[in-house]
Amino acid sequence: MAFGWIDQQAEARRRAGLVRTLRPRPADSPLLDLASNDYLGLARHPEVTEGAAAAARTWGGGATGSRLVTGTTGLHTELERALADFCGFEAALVFSSGYAANLAAVTALGPHGSLIVSDAGNHASLIDGCRLARGERQVVGHADPEAVRKALAAHEGPAIAVSDTVFSVDGDKAPLAEVAAACREHGAGLVVDDAHGLGVLGDGGRGAPYEAGLAGAEDVVVTATLSKSLGSQGGVVLGPARVIDHLVNAARTFIFDTGLAPAAAGAALAALRLLEREPGRAARAREVAAELHGRLTAAGLEAVRPDAAVVSVRAPSPEQAVRWAADCRTAGLAVGCFRPPSVPDGISRLRLTARADLSGAEIERAVRVIGETRP
Amino acid sequence: MAFGWIDQQAEARRRAGLVRTLRPRPADSPLLDLASNDYLGLARHPEVTEGAAAAARTWGGGATGSRLVTGTTGLHTELERALADFCGFEAALVFSSGYAANLAAVTALGPHGSLIVSDAGNHASLIDGCRLARGERQVVGHADPEAVRKALAAHEGPAIAVSDTVFSVDGDKAPLAEVAAACREHGAGLVVDDAHGLGVLGDGGRGAPYEAGLAGAEDVVVTATLSKSLGSQGGVVLGPARVIDHLVNAARTFIFDTGLAPAAAGAALAALRLLEREPGRAARAREVAAELHGRLTAAGLEAVRPDAAVVSVRAPSPEQAVRWAADCRTAGLAVGCFRPPSVPDGISRLRLTARADLSGAEIERAVRVIGETRP
Repeated sequence: MAFGWIDQQAEARRRAGLVRTLRPRPADSPLLDLASNDYLGLARHPEVTEGAAAAARTWGGGATGSRLVTGTTGLHTELERALADFCGFEAALVFSSGYAANLAAVTALGPHGSLIVSDAGNHASLIDGCRLARGERQVVGHADPEAVRKALAAHEGPAIAVSDTVFSVDGDKAPLAEVAAACREHGAGLVVDDAHGLGVLGDGGRGAPYEAGLAGAEDVVVTATLSKSLGSQGGVVLGPARVIDHLVNAARTFIFDTGLAPAAAGAALAALRLLEREPGRAARAREVAAELHGRLTAAGLEAVRPDAAVVSVRAPSPEQAVRWAADCRTAGLAVGCFRPPSVPDGISRLRLTARADLSGAEIERAVRVIGETRP
Repeated sequence: MAFGWIDQQAEARRRAGLVRTLRPRPADSPLLDLASNDYLGLARHPEVTEGAAAAARTWGGGATGSRLVTGTTGLHTELERALADFCGFEAALVFSSGYAANLAAVTALGPHGSLIVSDAGNHASLIDGCRLARGERQVVGHADPEAVRKALAAHEGPAIAVSDTVFSVDGDKAPLAEVAAACREHGAGLVVDDAHGLGVLGDGGRGAPYEAGLAGAEDVVVTATLSKSLGSQGGVVLGPARVIDHLVNAARTFIFDTGLAPAAAGAALAALRLLEREPGRAARAREVAAELHGRLTAAGLEAVRPDAAVVSVRAPSPEQAVRWAADCRTAGLAVGCFRPPSVPDGISRLRLTARADLSGAEIERAVRVIGETRP
C-alpha cells in the first residue's frame, strides 16, 4: 500500500516518546509566553498589527506573483531600503520566509566547484541550503574558526563559510570576528544567519554582524528573519548590491516563489520603525535574558549563559523534558522543549526566550514555576 | 576577492540579454494586469483584505514561532479544516509558502531507499524537493504516464510519482487519472502540485485532483498555494490524516519554519469562503482563458489551448519576448515574459493569466495590444 511505511515510522516514534502534535492556541491565551521568538514583544504591538492591516488594504492580500513578475510593490522596496540602512548594508532582498532566504543565499553563493564550510550547529535551513547547493559541503566543528581556516586553506576556487550568528538551540554566539578573519585570509565570503541576533544584539538591535564590525563589508552576506524580533513573517538577505543583484538573477527560492505578502512587509516595516524610535528594546531583551539566567542558576538549574535572548536549560532526558514543559504549561507558563531530532547534540532542553516586555514579576514567576516543576 | 566570480556571471547575463531586474509597482497601477496569478481577482477584494486585517489585529503580526511551539493558532486550524473540506481531503497542513509545502511533501514522502518519479516539466520547488529528498530521483518525459509506469515497475520498495497538475509555463494539464492508475498498479503514492488548479478547475474550483476523481484517495497527496486563486501567501498539503501527521513529525520546512502569518491565513480563509459562496468564479476564469485563446489565435498568434487559466503565447526569441512584453507594458498591458533559464524547453513566451474578473472590453483590449506589438 502507498505510504504504508509511514505507519511503521509513526509506531517507532510512539515507542520512543517522540510524537509531535500541534496545539492550537487561542487569541487570548492566559499562558505566560517564554516559548515564542517574539524577542521584542512586538508581534501584537498595535503599530505592528496596524502596519499589517494598512498594507493589506492598500496593496492587497497577496503579492500576486513572483517578485520578478507582479510581486514587487513599492512597499517591498521601502522595506528593503529600511532593512539595509538599519543593519548597515548596501542592499537587501526580502523573501517569504527566513528558510527561503537561507536556501537562496547558500545555493546562489555556493556554485559548482566552490567550497561551502558549514558549522555543525547550523540551522536546518542552512543545512538544506548546503545540500541543495552545487558546491562541495564540508561540515566543521561548532564555533571553531581554526577549523574554518583549515578547510578554506585546502581548497582552490570560490568558497564561503556559513554560520548562524546566534545558534537557536543553546543561544550561544558564533565567534564572528574570528571566522570573518579566517575567510579574509583565504578570499572567501562569509554568509551568516542573524535570525536570533537582529533586534537583540548590536547598537539598538542592528544585529550580530553590526556588533562584530562586519556591517557593510563587501565579503559578508547576512540573512535574517522578519518573524522573530520584527513580529511578522518573511526573511531577508543583506549584502553588497552586486550580491543582491546576483540573487535576483540566480536564487530559485526568490525567482520561483510568490513575493512576501504586503501585510507581512507592512508589519515588519512598522516593527523596524518602532525599534528605530525605541532602541532600548534590544538592550532590555538582553537584560531579561541575563536576569533569567542568573535566577535559574541561583535556583540550582543548569542554564547556559545567554549571549542573546535565548536561555537554554538542560533536561535529563527527552521524556523528562516533555513532562517538564507540560508541567510548566499546567502551571501557566509556555516554554519551548527541544529534543532529538531537533537538537544536533542529542541533549534535550527547555528553551526560554527573554522577551523585552517581560516584567520583573513575570520573570520571577517563570523562574519559580520552572524550579517547582523540575524533574 | 570574495564573490568575484559573480561579476563574470553578471557580465555573461548582460551579453546574453538575460538580466532580470525588479520593477516595483505602485498601489494604483494603471496597467491592465494579465501577468499576476490572481486568477479569481480576489487579492484586492475587500473581504480578503479585511480578512487579513482582522486576523492581524486578533492574532498579531506574526505566528511568533514554529508551528510546533507557539506558531499554531486557532485560525490555522480553522483554515486547514476549511481547505481539507473544500478540496475533499481528510486533513490539511499550511506552510509559509507553496515552495515550502512542496519541499516538505517530497522530502517527507521520498525517504532513503524510495523512488521519486518526477515529470520533466515540474516546478522548481518540486525539483528542489526531489534534490533534497533522500530517495532516488528519476526524471521522466513530460506528461507521460507510460514512462511513470515503467519507472515504477523497475523499483522495489516505497515510491511516489510527483507532478504539477497544471504546468505553470504553458498552462497544460497533467494526465492525472492515467498517472494515478500507473501509481496504483505499483502501490506507489501520487504527489501533485495543484498551485494552478485550485480555484480554477473542478466543481466550484475544488481543483484538478477533485476533477480527476482523486480527492480523498488514500494514496494521493496534493500540494497547493494560497498565493494564487486565494489571493494571499502560503502553501498547503492535503491528504490522509496519517500523511499529514507524518509531515508534522518529519518535514523540515514545517518543523524549522515560523508558522504562516495570521494575516495570510485570514486572507486565504476569507477568499475560500467567498469562493464557496460564489463558485461561478472558477468557471469564469476558464471562460476568460478560452476567449483569450480564441481571439489570439484568430489574430494569427501562436497560443497554446488553455487547460486552466494560463494562456501561453510563443515568441521567436528571448530578446523579442522581452521587447514584446515591454511594448505591451508601454501600451498599458502587463503580461508575463518567460524565457531561459525559467523555461524547461528553452522556448520564450508571453504568459497571460485569465483573471475571472476581466471584462469583455478588457479581453478585447489585451488581445489588440498583444497583436499590435507582436515582433
